[in-house]
Formats: sequence, structure tokens, C-alpha cells
Amino acid sequence: MTAAAEGPAIALDVMGGDRAPAATVEGAVRWAKATDRRAILVGDVDVMRGLLSSGGEDPSSWRLESGPTTIGMDQHPVQAVRSTRDASIRRCAELVRSGEAQALVSMGNTGATMAAGVLVVGRAAGVDRPGLAVLIPGREAPTLLIDVGANAEARPEHLRDFGLMGAVYLRQVLGTPNPRAAVLSIGEEATKGSPLTFAAAELLVASPLNFVGNVEPSGLFNNSVDLAVCDGFTGNLVLKSFEATAEFAVGELRTAIRRRPYTLPGVAFMYPAFRAVRRRTDYAQYGGTPLLGVDGVVIIGHGRSNAMAVENALHAAARAVESRLVERVSDGLTSISQ
Amino acid sequence: MTAAAEGPAIALDVMGGDRAPAATVEGAVRWAKATDRRAILVGDVDVMRGLLSSGGEDPSSWRLESGPTTIGMDQHPVQAVRSTRDASIRRCAELVRSGEAQALVSMGNTGATMAAGVLVVGRAAGVDRPGLAVLIPGREAPTLLIDVGANAEARPEHLRDFGLMGAVYLRQVLGTPNPRAAVLSIGEEATKGSPLTFAAAELLVASPLNFVGNVEPSGLFNNSVDLAVCDGFTGNLVLKSFEATAEFAVGELRTAIRRRPYTLPGVAFMYPAFRAVRRRTDYAQYGGTPLLGVDGVVIIGHGRSNAMAVENALHAAARAVESRLVERVSDGLTSISQ
Repeated sequence: MTAAAEGPAIALDVMGGDRAPAATVEGAVRWAKATDRRAILVGDVDVMRGLLSSGGEDPSSWRLESGPTTIGMDQHPVQAVRSTRDASIRRCAELVRSGEAQALVSMGNTGATMAAGVLVVGRAAGVDRPGLAVLIPGREAPTLLIDVGANAEARPEHLRDFGLMGAVYLRQVLGTPNPRAAVLSIGEEATKGSPLTFAAAELLVASPLNFVGNVEPSGLFNNSVDLAVCDGFTGNLVLKSFEATAEFAVGELRTAIRRRPYTLPGVAFMYPAFRAVRRRTDYAQYGGTPLLGVDGVVIIGHGRSNAMAVENALHAAARAVESRLVERVSDGLTSISQ
Repeated sequence: MTAAAEGPAIALDVMGGDRAPAATVEGAVRWAKATDRRAILVGDVDVMRGLLSSGGEDPSSWRLESGPTTIGMDQHPVQAVRSTRDASIRRCAELVRSGEAQALVSMGNTGATMAAGVLVVGRAAGVDRPGLAVLIPGREAPTLLIDVGANAEARPEHLRDFGLMGAVYLRQVLGTPNPRAAVLSIGEEATKGSPLTFAAAELLVASPLNFVGNVEPSGLFNNSVDLAVCDGFTGNLVLKSFEATAEFAVGELRTAIRRRPYTLPGVAFMYPAFRAVRRRTDYAQYGGTPLLGVDGVVIIGHGRSNAMAVENALHAAARAVESRLVERVSDGLTSISQ
């Protein structure tokens, strides 16, 4: 058995994601090679052993935890987490709760991972509502949008807390020195918004955050702010709108090209430009999205994650643990509420 | 003086829009040539006379109404409409209220047009809240999304009423026989949403509409429904998210090409495909977006409208008047509330 380097213990949900378990195991192996650390692999032990062996790894040098059942995309997240004792995501969350791991990473059902985070890992001290954050790719730098779906409803204090938690994440994990925070709204003017955004803006002005006012969806792409807060219903719809538009545009272009075969050589010529755009907007480079406000690091990757995305999610989880993200979030929220 | 054909009287806000007054007057001339009807032109009379003359028209055969002041994009819509007696959009709305016109068309400040519609034209009988509708371009056919910004807040009854009004518009103006209506939400399952969407869905099930459940943003593009309802804050953000993503994607591609000049020949090859996508997603072909629930036809065009978009907005306004849109909306809402 090879001794691994010291460092945070991360539980990886091997069974979660469209390309699991092959891509998750491969991502763990890549991360191990890059850092000389090994994640705790949670899933079907026989399957994991086989994948490690065929990837040239010695399974006995890895900690493998049994959690063979996958929670599907069609299952009700809270019920499934409660009723499925051997679900891989639930076992990951139990490892974090018991202190055997400081972080978990999953590419599976987002709702189930959130439910495992909130119900099993539990909320961090001082936190009323955890929030799910996502990095929106931008022209200069990405913008963190929070909450994109942890709670369908939110009160103004929750939006302020999302801002405080998001700012800690940006500072500690991404190295943004003094994040500019904004409320996502329907106009940049302070008069444009809903009762929720107006009340949240008042609390944010009075908070220690670098609050810069309202931001519209276009501002998320041009890095006019570093961080935008909203309720989870709004954030989830905005995120899905981004994805739907991008898919529609790509699909339309594909159809237009197919109907005009003489345009095809242009695709070959333009391929480097297409690839550059793809690379800059690829979710895989950001490695996943943090569930902030729970009592451990929880990183949720995209369902379509490939091995590189899994590796990057493990990097993000390690940075979050090493920078004491959870304690800093708790400290930030506790000092505000006093 | 040439006699114009009989038909609805439409007041056109010549001063509104980024390309006004040239594009608005040109659009009116195009519509006049296509239909042998003339809109009532509202704006700076000298400017309109000059543009008509240089476009080969005899100004004396047009009804020109004085309304020389434009409400800018930076002005507060309600205050500006209240305080600016000679604003072109206010004069248009007064013509509708007095019955001299049955419809108004504006490419100017959307907020000001909504304010003029609600405050000057007034609500239609039986309508509590007007709603602004927009057609989202789709793979097969466009989908009507309502409300995209007339009200930042809404109650469940308002979402039901938006559905009823939108269905009338689709049937009467666009010829959709039995529009499938949905609530815009964060998942297709009935369990996914907010208290507002849950309550609205209950009312919609009990309504005479062909209600099919929840729709996600991606469903707006693939014509899985004909009509989706939401509160104006949500709708406005979703619409702005569509626009922001499209602009970001185009901008990224442009930058990628500029940095790689050797990809440029590909653009030339692919031009017909790009143009096809542009044409299919061009707002100009839909001619504008109706403010439903006011006591006259109000069509709001895109600020960037060119002459073709203005012409199409005039066509849409005429169809709405001829199909007795306003009366049918009132009838629909009155029968529901009884």
C-alpha cells in the first residue's frame, strides 16, 4: 500500500453523473496523479476495483466505501436521500458528518446532493439557509451567482447571507480580493426590482460587503460584478435560460449547416475559433458549484462531467477545505447577526 | 388627397426607437404600400413631412399629429408619461382613448409605452392586471411568454388571467387553434416551483385553458407549449437572460475569429448558415409584443426595430383590431370571474 500525501479527505460520489462511474474514477485517478492524494471513493466496490485496476491503479491503495445505489434524476431528492441507506451520495454525506471526510464531490442528481448536504451534513453554525452557487463564464472572469436552486423561496436576509457566503468563497477559493456584490434584478437602477430585491439591497448596503447595486443578466457575462444574489427560483430559471439559449443557438446553427452542405468547409476553417469559445465557456474548467452554508465542503458538478471536470471539482474541494471555507462562512454570518 | 382603404386606425409613435424617426416613417410607408392604408403618424410634424416627402410620399395624404417630445430610455416611465403632455407616446395613447384610433404601435421606451397603455388608454373591462407578452423564437414555432415586465409582482389569479389573454392573442392574431398553456417553472414536475406557480397551476387546471403543466426555459424554444405564464419580474429576467446569452455567444465568437485571422474564410463560407439562423431568430419578423388587457390594441416593438419590424408591428396591430382582440380578452376574463 502506497502512502498518500497529507491533505483534506474528500469523499467522491463515484456513482453520480451521466458518465459515471468511468469518468468519476478516471477523474479521481487524474487528481491523485496531480496531487499525490487520494479521494475516498464511494460506490459499488467491485465496480470501482475493476475500474481502478484497468486504469493501472492498485485498488488496495485506495479507500473504497460501499454505496452502490444511485439516486436517479427522476426521483424525489429528499425522499430518496431519506429512504436509500446505501445511496452513494448519502454515504458521502455521512462521511463528512462523521468527520472522516471534510468534503464531498458529486456529479449526480443536484437535488439529491443538496438534500444530502442539508439533511445529513447539516447547516453550518450561524447559517439559516444554505445556497447553491454557480460560476457564470464571462468575457474577463466568471461571476458567481447564488442561489441557483437550493431554496425556491427566500427572505431578504437570505439574499444578504448568500452574498456574505459567496464573497467568502470568492476570496478563499478563487482568490478574488474584494468581491463586488450585486442583487440580480430587472434593471440597474435602484428603482427596478421586486419587494424582495429592494429589501435585500437595503440589508446589503448595511453589510460589510462591497455592494454595488443591481445587476442585470447581461452584467453577469461582462464581469461588471463578481457576485450576484437572488432567490433560488429566480437563479435556477436564469441559469436554465442561459443553458437553453446556448443549446438553441448551437442546434439552429447545426441545422442551418446541415441544410446547406456547401457551408460545411467553413466549419473546418472556423474550428479553432469554435473550439476557443467552447473552451472559454466550458463548465468543466470551473470544476463544479459549491453548496454554501452547510457544515462541510459540498461541491456539485455538472451531470455531464468528464474526467477533467471531476478532477477540477476535486481541486476546488481541496482548496475550499484548505482555506477553511466552512469556518469562515460561519464566522462571517455569526458576526453579521450579532 | 388620395383616399385610403377602410380599416383600423393605428397611431404610430414616430419618435420612439433607436432608429426613429427615419425607420418608423419608412415602416409606415411600407405598410401603406402593402395594405393601401395609412397609419396616423404622431411626432414632430415638420420632421415627418420632410421624411415623407423624401420617401416619395405626399404628406398631405397622411394624418399627422403633433407629439414632438421623445421619452428617453433613462427617464422614469410613469413620471415622464404623466408630466410630458406633448410626448409622442402619450399622444398616441390619447388617440386610442378618444376612439380616434383603435391601436397604437411604439418602438420607444417599453416602460413608457406600458405606462401610457395602463394610465392613458386604461384597463379593459374585466382585467385586473395587464400583461406584456413576447414571442420567443423556437425550432418549430414561437412560444408566447407573458408577463415579461408589466408588473414586478403578481398573484396567482394574474398568472391565470395572463394565460387567458395570451390564448386569445394566439388564437385571434397568430391563428393557433387550441393553444397549450403552461406555467414557467424550474422543473416540469408539478412538485417543482414556488408557492406562486403552485397556486397558479391550480387555477389554470380549473380554467377553460388547455393547461399542460409546467414548462422550463428550454421548453420555450422547442415549442413543447404555445404559451407560458409567469410574474413580470421572472419573465423580464428570463427574457434578458436569453438576450444576454445570445449577445455573449456572438461576441465571444467574434473575438475568437479576430484573434485567429486564418479562421476568417470560414465565416464567408458559413455566411448563408449564419444568415439563416439570424433570420429565424430575428425579432423583426414577429413585429412586436402586445400589451394585453388594456382598452385598445397596444403593440410594443423592439428599440432596435428597422422599417421591416415597424411594418410587421403595424400588420400585427391591424390583425389584432380586426379580430376584436380587446373585446375577446374582456369577454374571456369576465366569464371566468363570474
